Amino acid sequence: MTASKDLLGQLAESAPRHLAELVEWLRIPSVSSDSTRIHEVKQAASWVAEKLERAGLDVEIMPTEGHPMVYAESPKIDGAPVVLVYGHYDVQPVEPLDEWVNGPFEPTIRDGNLYARGATDDKGQVLTHVQSVCDWLASGQSLPLQVKFLIEGEEEVGSENLERMLPELREKLACDCVVISDSGQYSDGQPAITYGLRGIATYELTVNGPSQDLHSGSFGGAVVNPAIALCQLLGSMIDGQGRVQIPGYYDNVRDLSQEERDQWAGLPQNDSEFASAIGVDKLSGEQGYTTDERRWARPTFDVNGLTSGHQGEGVKTIIPATAKAKFSFRLVPDQDPSEVTAAVEQHLNDHCPVGVKWNLEADHGAPGMLAATDSRFVHAANAAIESAFGVLPVLIREGGSIPIVTRFQEVLGCDCLLLGWGLSDDNAHSPNEKFRVEDYHRGIRASAMLWDEIGKLN
Amino acid sequence: MTASKDLLGQLAESAPRHLAELVEWLRIPSVSSDSTRIHEVKQAASWVAEKLERAGLDVEIMPTEGHPMVYAESPKIDGAPVVLVYGHYDVQPVEPLDEWVNGPFEPTIRDGNLYARGATDDKGQVLTHVQSVCDWLASGQSLPLQVKFLIEGEEEVGSENLERMLPELREKLACDCVVISDSGQYSDGQPAITYGLRGIATYELTVNGPSQDLHSGSFGGAVVNPAIALCQLLGSMIDGQGRVQIPGYYDNVRDLSQEERDQWAGLPQNDSEFASAIGVDKLSGEQGYTTDERRWARPTFDVNGLTSGHQGEGVKTIIPATAKAKFSFRLVPDQDPSEVTAAVEQHLNDHCPVGVKWNLEADHGAPGMLAATDSRFVHAANAAIESAFGVLPVLIREGGSIPIVTRFQEVLGCDCLLLGWGLSDDNAHSPNEKFRVEDYHRGIRASAMLWDEIGKLN
Repeated sequence: MTASKDLLGQLAESAPRHLAELVEWLRIPSVSSDSTRIHEVKQAASWVAEKLERAGLDVEIMPTEGHPMVYAESPKIDGAPVVLVYGHYDVQPVEPLDEWVNGPFEPTIRDGNLYARGATDDKGQVLTHVQSVCDWLASGQSLPLQVKFLIEGEEEVGSENLERMLPELREKLACDCVVISDSGQYSDGQPAITYGLRGIATYELTVNGPSQDLHSGSFGGAVVNPAIALCQLLGSMIDGQGRVQIPGYYDNVRDLSQEERDQWAGLPQNDSEFASAIGVDKLSGEQGYTTDERRWARPTFDVNGLTSGHQGEGVKTIIPATAKAKFSFRLVPDQDPSEVTAAVEQHLNDHCPVGVKWNLEADHGAPGMLAATDSRFVHAANAAIESAFGVLPVLIREGGSIPIVTRFQEVLGCDCLLLGWGLSDDNAHSPNEKFRVEDYHRGIRASAMLWDEIGKLN
Repeated sequence: MTASKDLLGQLAESAPRHLAELVEWLRIPSVSSDSTRIHEVKQAASWVAEKLERAGLDVEIMPTEGHPMVYAESPKIDGAPVVLVYGHYDVQPVEPLDEWVNGPFEPTIRDGNLYARGATDDKGQVLTHVQSVCDWLASGQSLPLQVKFLIEGEEEVGSENLERMLPELREKLACDCVVISDSGQYSDGQPAITYGLRGIATYELTVNGPSQDLHSGSFGGAVVNPAIALCQLLGSMIDGQGRVQIPGYYDNVRDLSQEERDQWAGLPQNDSEFASAIGVDKLSGEQGYTTDERRWARPTFDVNGLTSGHQGEGVKTIIPATAKAKFSFRLVPDQDPSEVTAAVEQHLNDHCPVGVKWNLEADHGAPGMLAATDSRFVHAANAAIESAFGVLPVLIREGGSIPIVTRFQEVLGCDCLLLGWGLSDDNAHSPNEKFRVEDYHRGIRASAMLWDEIGKLN
């Protein structure tokens, strides 16, 4: 290990500032899906660009057709590896607001956790790498590798602009390995390296019936109710055992290897603790698979939102003219989102009753991802994480999707390291999102050590 | 016919005043569900009370826990029948305001129609009876029967106070027949006597899953999605042919008689015109029944509203913690709303997956109603309507519900005459509610003739 005692000392000394800076960034409500927040999203980009610039990196704010991306790089080191840190400064919407204990953009520490929208997803996590690089440079030592940053503002809305621009950015982003911290530890105190992600395909389905809401007394029984048709269409997509019923859906699903199943079986998964942590009596899912297998390596179907007719107080006995749903699939290798879309359309054609019409909008899709499990970067990360967390990481997959990762693999031809510092109860995408303060600091230390370990590879 | 030429002449002479008075009443925005309109609701009650008082009836404004009821009676005629006219002076809310051509409380005549909230439902219709009685009395002739009026201010919010007070009002309201004009003609120019109404049972169903919204990536596949469970529960309640699937639901349904079916088959129902008027390609419903049979005499299930998870712009890939639906049944004789509730609860118990919990709130229920089709009052109404409209009325049922009618039958033990002067495109409960001016005047004439015909019964 060449990272001097000075650097570790400096990280410890800087801890209060590290935290204060995260709080400052979290105060900026950079909700990328909210068109009234354009200014704040830009402000969050500027915040991290300025931080990187002050540390001496070459920084560029790259406009897109949507929200801007922040690009930065430390000096090129001849013969040393190049690492690209990818992350995002945009955050999810905050609704339902009344379930938050503190305001989502009023970061608050309780019981060692920092609560705010974006705390773990992803401002807190990506900032660990920003802090470690800035502190390396501030310590007066030169980094033993070149670090590039690409911090975008549209991850929570599908990264479409980045995805489209990626081929033209191939030179600029060229690297040996992409490092991403947008996932989690396996469990509290047990860090993990994530070598697989699920893909995603999201949709909005509208069922249109009569030209206006009808009186259910005068018309009930004589016309198809669009809200019922929507329920039956959605209900027909999955059976009671969590098995998707769309023909062809499982055709390209890559089976879990026995080796993976054995390895995961050794992880300390406790279904009843898991259930009680999220407030349900019982977990439930596809037969023949464990909870981790269901979450990480099996494709799913979820309804994300429903809206139709009268939703206010009291009774209004109408046949709604329209019913809408947002729904999504989590995909696994080697499912193809566009093939899934075609299968869904076929399923809707086959099941939609005469008398109503369906309309499907495919929002965005990305295939699942699998990375190497024994590359030199994995070995470097093992060592860095062990030195910061005190234990070796376990190898896991994750159920979430970071669509751009697959594209990085394809376009940049690089390795991938997904190093998550978060915890499964961090409430990403939910009210009361949090990040444990100690994990933020350990993440910074692990990141600093990672540059050291990767620098030793050549 | 004993109604003198004088009376018919007087009705014709008074037509401009009849219309002016309706316009005046319609100007009062008596929206019973709007707590900021309490004063105007009271004002609408006073308006009709004063009109009846000026005509010489004994009038009483009866307070309730909500809006007042107007009661009035003409002198008792020994040995002659007693008729109770029931109607309401309260109106539905007017939203969406921007869809009205004229202001909802600025009555405007276009193309022979008077447009205003309450024009047909129910100020215009109940006023036909008020005008006819006032004009009988003004003509100097004594009425050949006793007419009582009960005009309430809470019909559009469920008539709960009237329903509760009905037993104590039994003496006051005692009558041989209740006359209600709050329905419609069968079609333009083809008046109808409505001898059946459907009942109703309305519910709010909540399906609760995890204690908060979950990330569909990290948790999808491992927990039951409450929105999917809701869809499947609702979807399981009815099949693709409009047949309710709740065990026992049809047990007490009284079959249509062949006589009724034959009679309705003779009505000029045109399915494709009906479909195109409401903007659907095709009507659809329970197999083995015509459109009128489905709307009037078969029980139904409708989802009135759905709400769950993310309903705003863009994508939010969550497993919603909760999903809700408002749904309702239209019931027919002899279904019992409380038995239906019990059957629904049993169905939910049988079908709800482990991992989520359901909660059902029953809002209100009322059984369906059937009145005699060949009573002396029906014969009287036939003659009265023929003389005013030039054609005999057809006998129909209606798909909507007027819960208080069944209670009148039960508590007062009286006959029922539902004589609707409206048209199906009068937009009751919708923007641009209207009442055809000619139908208002014909309604007044039919009502005046009705008192004459009923007076001849004894």
